[in-house]
Amino acid sequence: MSTLFTARDACSFGAHVVVRELDLPVEVVRVALRTAESPIHAVNPLGRVPALRLDDDTVITENGAILPYLADLKPGTTLFALPGEPERAQIQSWISYISTEIHAAGFRQVNRPERYSADPASHDGIRRQSARTLHAAIAHIDRHLQGRDWLVGNRFTIADAYLGVFVRWIARLGPDFAGFDALNRFREAYLARPSVQAALAAEAG
Amino acid sequence: MSTLFTARDACSFGAHVVVRELDLPVEVVRVALRTAESPIHAVNPLGRVPALRLDDDTVITENGAILPYLADLKPGTTLFALPGEPERAQIQSWISYISTEIHAAGFRQVNRPERYSADPASHDGIRRQSARTLHAAIAHIDRHLQGRDWLVGNRFTIADAYLGVFVRWIARLGPDFAGFDALNRFREAYLARPSVQAALAAEAG
Repeated sequence: MSTLFTARDACSFGAHVVVRELDLPVEVVRVALRTAESPIHAVNPLGRVPALRLDDDTVITENGAILPYLADLKPGTTLFALPGEPERAQIQSWISYISTEIHAAGFRQVNRPERYSADPASHDGIRRQSARTLHAAIAHIDRHLQGRDWLVGNRFTIADAYLGVFVRWIARLGPDFAGFDALNRFREAYLARPSVQAALAAEAG
Repeated sequence: MSTLFTARDACSFGAHVVVRELDLPVEVVRVALRTAESPIHAVNPLGRVPALRLDDDTVITENGAILPYLADLKPGTTLFALPGEPERAQIQSWISYISTEIHAAGFRQVNRPERYSADPASHDGIRRQSARTLHAAIAHIDRHLQGRDWLVGNRFTIADAYLGVFVRWIARLGPDFAGFDALNRFREAYLARPSVQAALAAEAG
């Protein structure tokens, strides 16, 4: 059986939701991060989640790879689209946009400015300006969601499963990030899904 | 006919190489970036390349979506793998890693620190520390390439077409980035490919 390695409140949550949406035969294992003893280091040398270990011990990393791989275990469901279909590319495009603009070049600078300057005096300035950059990237998604329930094709897909991670993080960013009406609607619909509820309960355990 | 919008020396180069590797019926159009008059704004509201406009005017953005979409126009070639095959996920994983760690959370901070702090006095510090972060991310790829010619499956894939963009950028970063032996070997093999030579010649025109 394949094993999906996740951590509490991490960006692996979207993959966990996909496992439950599709009722996949994948074991979900929660690990600690940023401790030398974590079993994640034996799976992914970068020490990160999500990581998906297949039956033959091949390890797949990165949401942009794991989410489509999981969906392709049951081809033809509404969570994804088949190769050659433009919707498949649109779903993959949103996953890329969220990985790069929201996570890697957004939250990471806000949360970990020390990775981007060794000078502690500049960290507040990095947090402030990076929050503006992140705000603009989120606004792009909010505009797209106006008049739509989900990112692509008016149905819940793996891109939405992944966006839900960041919509939960955005809710903690404070009043400057509270006015995204379409995203707020999205968050309510996301949290109401049985798969999301079940994944949250499992990760809280 | 579909149209791929590219810009000179931009991250769209990998998709251009894939069009030539597979001899796809895709028109490649070069546009200017960061000018209000550029035709890219009518295609992609974010003003970025690559953007792929399909026959029905659907527009696909993001390398993580365009590269697989292009390869899937000819299923079964050595440039990609079929859905369900672990190599397909590994190829997609490297594209994600390169987009996030090398481009969005690497080169962008080194090249455009103003996006991450409004205080000009902190920009040099951001460039320096971000260069260290980028160096570590590149070292991960260099280690993977030791004893291998290409990223996945010992054959040139869409992940390599994309890595080639950044290997060319890395070569301009100066002496601290000159010692990646496996990447230097990769760069020579990349530049020797007829598809790469043809794409370079077309973009120089």
